[in-house]
Amino acid sequence: MIRIGVVGATGYTGVELLRLLVSHPDVEIAAVTSRKEAGNRVDSLFPNLRGHVDLDFTSPDEADLASCDLVFFATPNGTAMKSVPALLEAGVRVIDLAADFRIKDTETWSDWYGLEHACPELLTEAVYGLPEINREAICKARLVANPGCYPTATTLGLLPLIERDGLVDRGHIIADCKSGVSGAGRKAQVPTLFSEAEENFKAYGVSGHRHLPEIRQTLETRAGEPVGLTFVPHLIPMIRGIHATLYVRLLERGTDLQSLFEEYYENEPFVDVLDAGAHPETRTVRGSNTCRIAFHQPQGGDTAVILSVIDNLVKGAAGQAVQNMNIMFGFNESHGLLQPALLP
Amino acid sequence: MIRIGVVGATGYTGVELLRLLVSHPDVEIAAVTSRKEAGNRVDSLFPNLRGHVDLDFTSPDEADLASCDLVFFATPNGTAMKSVPALLEAGVRVIDLAADFRIKDTETWSDWYGLEHACPELLTEAVYGLPEINREAICKARLVANPGCYPTATTLGLLPLIERDGLVDRGHIIADCKSGVSGAGRKAQVPTLFSEAEENFKAYGVSGHRHLPEIRQTLETRAGEPVGLTFVPHLIPMIRGIHATLYVRLLERGTDLQSLFEEYYENEPFVDVLDAGAHPETRTVRGSNTCRIAFHQPQGGDTAVILSVIDNLVKGAAGQAVQNMNIMFGFNESHGLLQPALLP
Amino acid sequence: MIRIGVVGATGYTGVELLRLLVSHPDVEIAAVTSRKEAGNRVDSLFPNLRGHVDLDFTSPDEADLASCDLVFFATPNGTAMKSVPALLEAGVRVIDLAADFRIKDTETWSDWYGLEHACPELLTEAVYGLPEINREAICKARLVANPGCYPTATTLGLLPLIERDGLVDRGHIIADCKSGVSGAGRKAQVPTLFSEAEENFKAYGVSGHRHLPEIRQTLETRAGEPVGLTFVPHLIPMIRGIHATLYVRLLERGTDLQSLFEEYYENEPFVDVLDAGAHPETRTVRGSNTCRIAFHQPQGGDTAVILSVIDNLVKGAAGQAVQNMNIMFGFNESHGLLQPALLP
Amino acid sequence: MIRIGVVGATGYTGVELLRLLVSHPDVEIAAVTSRKEAGNRVDSLFPNLRGHVDLDFTSPDEADLASCDLVFFATPNGTAMKSVPALLEAGVRVIDLAADFRIKDTETWSDWYGLEHACPELLTEAVYGLPEINREAICKARLVANPGCYPTATTLGLLPLIERDGLVDRGHIIADCKSGVSGAGRKAQVPTLFSEAEENFKAYGVSGHRHLPEIRQTLETRAGEPVGLTFVPHLIPMIRGIHATLYVRLLERGTDLQSLFEEYYENEPFVDVLDAGAHPETRTVRGSNTCRIAFHQPQGGDTAVILSVIDNLVKGAAGQAVQNMNIMFGFNESHGLLQPALLP
Repeated sequence: MIRIGVVGATGYTGVELLRLLVSHPDVEIAAVTSRKEAGNRVDSLFPNLRGHVDLDFTSPDEADLASCDLVFFATPNGTAMKSVPALLEAGVRVIDLAADFRIKDTETWSDWYGLEHACPELLTEAVYGLPEINREAICKARLVANPGCYPTATTLGLLPLIERDGLVDRGHIIADCKSGVSGAGRKAQVPTLFSEAEENFKAYGVSGHRHLPEIRQTLETRAGEPVGLTFVPHLIPMIRGIHATLYVRLLERGTDLQSLFEEYYENEPFVDVLDAGAHPETRTVRGSNTCRIAFHQPQGGDTAVILSVIDNLVKGAAGQAVQNMNIMFGFNESHGLLQPALLP
Repeated sequence: MIRIGVVGATGYTGVELLRLLVSHPDVEIAAVTSRKEAGNRVDSLFPNLRGHVDLDFTSPDEADLASCDLVFFATPNGTAMKSVPALLEAGVRVIDLAADFRIKDTETWSDWYGLEHACPELLTEAVYGLPEINREAICKARLVANPGCYPTATTLGLLPLIERDGLVDRGHIIADCKSGVSGAGRKAQVPTLFSEAEENFKAYGVSGHRHLPEIRQTLETRAGEPVGLTFVPHLIPMIRGIHATLYVRLLERGTDLQSLFEEYYENEPFVDVLDAGAHPETRTVRGSNTCRIAFHQPQGGDTAVILSVIDNLVKGAAGQAVQNMNIMFGFNESHGLLQPALLP
Repeated sequence: MIRIGVVGATGYTGVELLRLLVSHPDVEIAAVTSRKEAGNRVDSLFPNLRGHVDLDFTSPDEADLASCDLVFFATPNGTAMKSVPALLEAGVRVIDLAADFRIKDTETWSDWYGLEHACPELLTEAVYGLPEINREAICKARLVANPGCYPTATTLGLLPLIERDGLVDRGHIIADCKSGVSGAGRKAQVPTLFSEAEENFKAYGVSGHRHLPEIRQTLETRAGEPVGLTFVPHLIPMIRGIHATLYVRLLERGTDLQSLFEEYYENEPFVDVLDAGAHPETRTVRGSNTCRIAFHQPQGGDTAVILSVIDNLVKGAAGQAVQNMNIMFGFNESHGLLQPALLP
Repeated sequence: MIRIGVVGATGYTGVELLRLLVSHPDVEIAAVTSRKEAGNRVDSLFPNLRGHVDLDFTSPDEADLASCDLVFFATPNGTAMKSVPALLEAGVRVIDLAADFRIKDTETWSDWYGLEHACPELLTEAVYGLPEINREAICKARLVANPGCYPTATTLGLLPLIERDGLVDRGHIIADCKSGVSGAGRKAQVPTLFSEAEENFKAYGVSGHRHLPEIRQTLETRAGEPVGLTFVPHLIPMIRGIHATLYVRLLERGTDLQSLFEEYYENEPFVDVLDAGAHPETRTVRGSNTCRIAFHQPQGGDTAVILSVIDNLVKGAAGQAVQNMNIMFGFNESHGLLQPALLP
């Protein structure tokens, strides 16, 4: 039984993390912090937790986070980096669900996030928390950078192809991604009002989205060479779910690509490779930590299409964070993550 | 560990039942039947169950239901009544999620359902499976009639008021109820197509809906006298959730009605009485077995307003069926039903 | 051809007004004001107007509103009252789509809106712009108070019954109303975010909503005596549409109530009485100025149910404002308002 | 004033056609046929047309279609081809909104539609009704094949680039398209039920969709050489709208591609080229006949991204059919098509 702190739990990744943690057999939630909601009951803000979380929000200054075994940061970008060094110093392990520790190169991070980094010396140490490629490092990590939602869906869909030399044109990869609106967070703003987002579909950030350098970094690390990626995110009028439609040019024939995917993810508890030609639906992962992937080669041509779906709040955020916690503390990797998706 | 059969598991109450049962510590799913899907994998129809249910659908004729301890019927109205007598004969206990055993009066049942009843002799024996009023009878029952979704939300909202003599005008109760579209089932039909139901709101069945006699039967049994009820159902453009807005005329002043509700449901694990003046939201019970209720007396007048919300597929169907099973077999009443609602 | 000014056209009633006015044969839009958007093109904020409105927003201070024949205020409550006296002085006629001039009693207005009224002397002169009861007064009015959305749907559904002495129990009327989210406006706030309002249904303001005194005022004026009204608004997860479900106790039998409705609205261009027993759907009025009404008497009992639907942004706001303008200036009452609803 | 017949007007393209035609100054609707609905009022099926269409459905056998100037077929694929030859013989002009006359090659048509063509001799004569490339031929046509929805959005987005030799890699074009559910029609079927399609996103038909050969045919005709196209359609949980995200590899630098688009569509009344870098939203064309297009070149790389949005029922079906009618009969091309989109 470890003691958990959750910092900044007033957004959607925060409430989702609490939803998962209350069913987890190995943890105790010690503190849930929010500067704005300090003193209010957690379940008055999120009534789905009535009967499950009997805590008040506390101010981050007053919460005794240093006595926790693990602290999750579910804060806006640029917040965790201010508090993490002291916590690590105090022997607390940290999982940051925001982007503060995802990019290895300080300058790249500053370019995309518009901030100076508060603790660049930790960027090298931080482990990118995608268990499918970093399980061993996560196991020993003091600080885990939980991946972004688009990067999780996209990277898992491309890894088996990108890692094998000569298989695909690494210079021209297209990731046409679509996300439910909860990915934009719980901040009051006009573009994500119901009457703006409902019955509407649009692309956004085509000129450049912060998840582009994150995806590229992972792909380049695994490929061992520069990767050309066109990443176009879109907003779907629904709450949860990401659907990545990935296009790569095949450079060779003869490899059984369906088997390649099946073998690559054979032992992964949260990646489900569907039969060739299947169409994974986002609702089949709603509320669950699973990523479902299907491989297509339309008309037998040289363009491969990979479809990859996740719940952006679970495998794309809180669920993956719990998976990382399980790995870090030697729990069963699936603890707290075994509920089937809610369908319909 | 008991052996469970699920008959007719191709609809929404069926898949929801399977979702709940796979997380239940005390049961083993022995057979899932469907005439139409016999031979196909259950998780090919409902991919959210991949990794959770490793079974094929079997034909109801071939399934060895008689060897089960309990059989759930998630079939259309008029189906269960044909098979139930033989199963009971074989010593199998039964929970029917359809309407075959909900109405005590054979003629009333035939009037509203347009069928002759196949085993009217069982109508008296069948226990109406609303645990909040029938827990002891459910405990010993061979045959439980699982309540309808509207009746569950409506009845739970009215019970504390209706049972006390002289408190409200029992002759003029209004139940303005709203349901998500999943309540209409998974049958292919034009009115519940996405493009018909989305961005639309309508009442239906105002002249008379099958849940009217069911609600009235319970209220009259508890009140000990005839009850006048106007019941108007509406269709909400969302998948899950029922919101009952109930209006009663108060005949006396002085009773602390908020306390009345709180005390009535004090020991109920799945009824949550909110503070006076609260507005329960359907999303706070999405995927959960809880009914949340709030009492209002606008402007201190003589019209009381009670708001009652449930997930129609859980407390309004599959979850309540699992709760009944837990009671029947002496399991912890909350087993399999403790997940918080999925919000957002 | 009259010259029109639209003040505060950055909200949903504003853009809807512009949508209707650009198709209107008798008007020219002279100025569209917004303090915040001054200098920006109107169609950059509302791209559906590209090719239809070739204007910039101007600051209300700089716009030459005094040279307009008519100025619409599509501003938040409490704004119009500051500018209206000067405009009337200048000979400009005014239609206020907000609530500043809807309530006749200054104190009541202040109680519900929490402001001191800036020009209480105009409250008597202002004409409540419900054409079905005030057509002649609107014709000559300098200042029209455009009705609220809930009041329009509710009042039109009740008028034929409430006006006839002894027909219904005027002391116990229930208006269970449901509105699409656009009724809450285009302001950035958490409760109307997509991820909060989608797949959710809730009541709000049960203890008292600002439209309650407005509805009561009209009903009492028409009834000639106090009226007891319980008004419960709910939020539907859709953009447009109001559905009012109205319950009244019938005190006498024998009157043909269906005919009463049909005759009452016989010559009304924008009230459509459906056949008895029909269920009007909000989508049948999406984008149109029509109110559709159906009368029910379930099981022949003494509780009558009236269903009334409008598009909250059209007959509940901008469309009714255009209808009022047509009456004020002697145009064909239907000009600019003849498009059928968009279905599906 | 011409006389119009609409065959098979019980689907979404049918009701949309009627919505547009009732506001059209130059036409009279003479007959609306449906075998199934014969004898019923049109506005009982589509109540949005109450007060606008005072007609009954008639059986296609009894309707005097031969006396019409123009007959629209809004029928399922394979229906129009059976009746068109006789109508043309009788001097009636025809616009088919289905796919019977879109593909020039009989064998290709049969392969994709699984039917033998009933009048292959008309395939050459039929004019593909995309006004932006075929205006003159449409003008004189007896028989117009109205384009599919995906092909309209996709083709308009690609034409300026594909027509210029050497500008893009014509062998590797990617069309990642997303459609609202109304594109699947009004047929009762499980996959388009509300509870299946809501809060869900999926690709479908990745191995091959019927619109693929249609798009390829147009592109190849305009390019003058074979074109390699990967076309992936997806289903969006909304009623109306198509968003095509198109990816092409640029082979040369130096051309001002934004200007290329602007000049190409300079005189087109229904193609709106947005500023470079814009993100067109489907709601900005809801109910309108406009196609909005934006050009992007992310990070200045060699992959161009074109975003193209239409309302699938208007520019993708009924609106384009009306536009074709206007051209065929010498009406103002915009008649009946000038309403702004409904936003929000």
